[in-house]
Amino acid sequence: MTRAQLLEQIRQKKSFLCVGLDPDMGKIPPHLTHEPDPIFSFAKEIIDATAPFAVAYKPNIAFFEAWGVKGWEALQKTLEYIPANCFTIADAKRGDIGNTSSLYAKAFFDKKASGLSFDSVTVAPYMGRDSVEPFLQFDDKWVILLGLTSNVGSQDFQYLRTENNTFLFEEVLRISQTWGNEDNLMYVVGATQAASLQAVRQIIPNHFLLVPGVGAQGGSLEEVAKNGLTKECGLLVNSSRGIIYASSGKDFAEKAAVEAKKIQEEMAVYLQNFGILSY
Amino acid sequence: MTRAQLLEQIRQKKSFLCVGLDPDMGKIPPHLTHEPDPIFSFAKEIIDATAPFAVAYKPNIAFFEAWGVKGWEALQKTLEYIPANCFTIADAKRGDIGNTSSLYAKAFFDKKASGLSFDSVTVAPYMGRDSVEPFLQFDDKWVILLGLTSNVGSQDFQYLRTENNTFLFEEVLRISQTWGNEDNLMYVVGATQAASLQAVRQIIPNHFLLVPGVGAQGGSLEEVAKNGLTKECGLLVNSSRGIIYASSGKDFAEKAAVEAKKIQEEMAVYLQNFGILSY
Repeated sequence: MTRAQLLEQIRQKKSFLCVGLDPDMGKIPPHLTHEPDPIFSFAKEIIDATAPFAVAYKPNIAFFEAWGVKGWEALQKTLEYIPANCFTIADAKRGDIGNTSSLYAKAFFDKKASGLSFDSVTVAPYMGRDSVEPFLQFDDKWVILLGLTSNVGSQDFQYLRTENNTFLFEEVLRISQTWGNEDNLMYVVGATQAASLQAVRQIIPNHFLLVPGVGAQGGSLEEVAKNGLTKECGLLVNSSRGIIYASSGKDFAEKAAVEAKKIQEEMAVYLQNFGILSY
Repeated sequence: MTRAQLLEQIRQKKSFLCVGLDPDMGKIPPHLTHEPDPIFSFAKEIIDATAPFAVAYKPNIAFFEAWGVKGWEALQKTLEYIPANCFTIADAKRGDIGNTSSLYAKAFFDKKASGLSFDSVTVAPYMGRDSVEPFLQFDDKWVILLGLTSNVGSQDFQYLRTENNTFLFEEVLRISQTWGNEDNLMYVVGATQAASLQAVRQIIPNHFLLVPGVGAQGGSLEEVAKNGLTKECGLLVNSSRGIIYASSGKDFAEKAAVEAKKIQEEMAVYLQNFGILSY
């Protein structure tokens, strides 16, 4: 999906919501666990219920991979079920030396090889430029590089101070932005660190940011919008647990829709107030 | 596999060789490509031929994952085929927030869930402590954390200088060693940077190091042994392409054995000279 197509979806749905698909076998409603493919059954109903309010879906690959071959079958079915007008993110945090990253790119982008064709994949920056570039060789596909994550462990290295008196995550943003461009490179920036969004926007004023951590992890949507929105939008805000586990009963999909709609309506206000809908 | 069991294998085989299984469909011998499962057929013959000389096998997960469900089936068969006395490494470079890393740990360590039970998995450090700890919760399983990698891109961030006048990779080693211990934590240290091994050994004198980059990537085994061996051994040196693609003809397995034997014999000399065999 191109940047223009994604922006069009955002304006049409008045939403920059990404629904995170983390199908945890310990949390999905008990009545689904007897289905032949509980993970897919769960994901399918969540997608049906939330598609009017979401512009993107982010399957968390670990939750599929934990079940081996069966999990990859469920992942393939889930991806195929996501409506074509939604942006798809393989949240996989991959990255390795060049020839190996080429194979990971194939796994998530090349349907003929792997059966999967996501619009984007999350990539870890530690191994540097040649570990990221193979993912950038595909037309209309995106890398979403880890910048600043939303977990406690982000303090360990991402906030290490360099000899330039910058934080490591700032160096990652500064250096890596030359590897791609605003049409094929986004960044993960955790919402639990909303104040840091200002620092991020000074380095990358226009790149799309994928912001996890709103909801269950404690981030505030209002803060994220205030500090992160660009004139075109430039944000995808992810919510996983707050939507998909809003209820553990038979009404889980209905309740997921209620939560997604609530977020979308708040987003519509910010998009309106920032003049993005008429941009 | 415990540290004691691994050391026993090293002394028995007089080897610290790890064979990297990177089954590239563009490189495996043409006569195998018509088999029902070419990747497994290739891996099987390589394992049969090299097992007398290798103490560890390292399937590179990308080379399986690129083929989706079929690739994961081949991975499962390959892992099952590796002899029980060999240490197994899932070279997967995973790592995510805590609850997600738990699922990745399940994918590679919990056979009941995923069908796979490796002895170890490679993990990327960027997301910090809580992204690594879930992998350390399994008895007799290991994390192999990225310290210094062998690719050009290692220059981008791993050699960033911090305010303490250290390199980032040195901070990663220093900080992360408290997360586990010498019985469940190893480090990836690229052999193309053999001089840096001395710096590494100053920070972690005893931890096992997994050293890629010998052979095709240009590292010298002699330099690695000189700078990396501990009194117990403390090294696993990986060779992938130099062994598995020694020939692209029908003699590929035979030639792989020749290359593996050559490396093992050189290793035996270092183990002897350093007094490790009688330790």
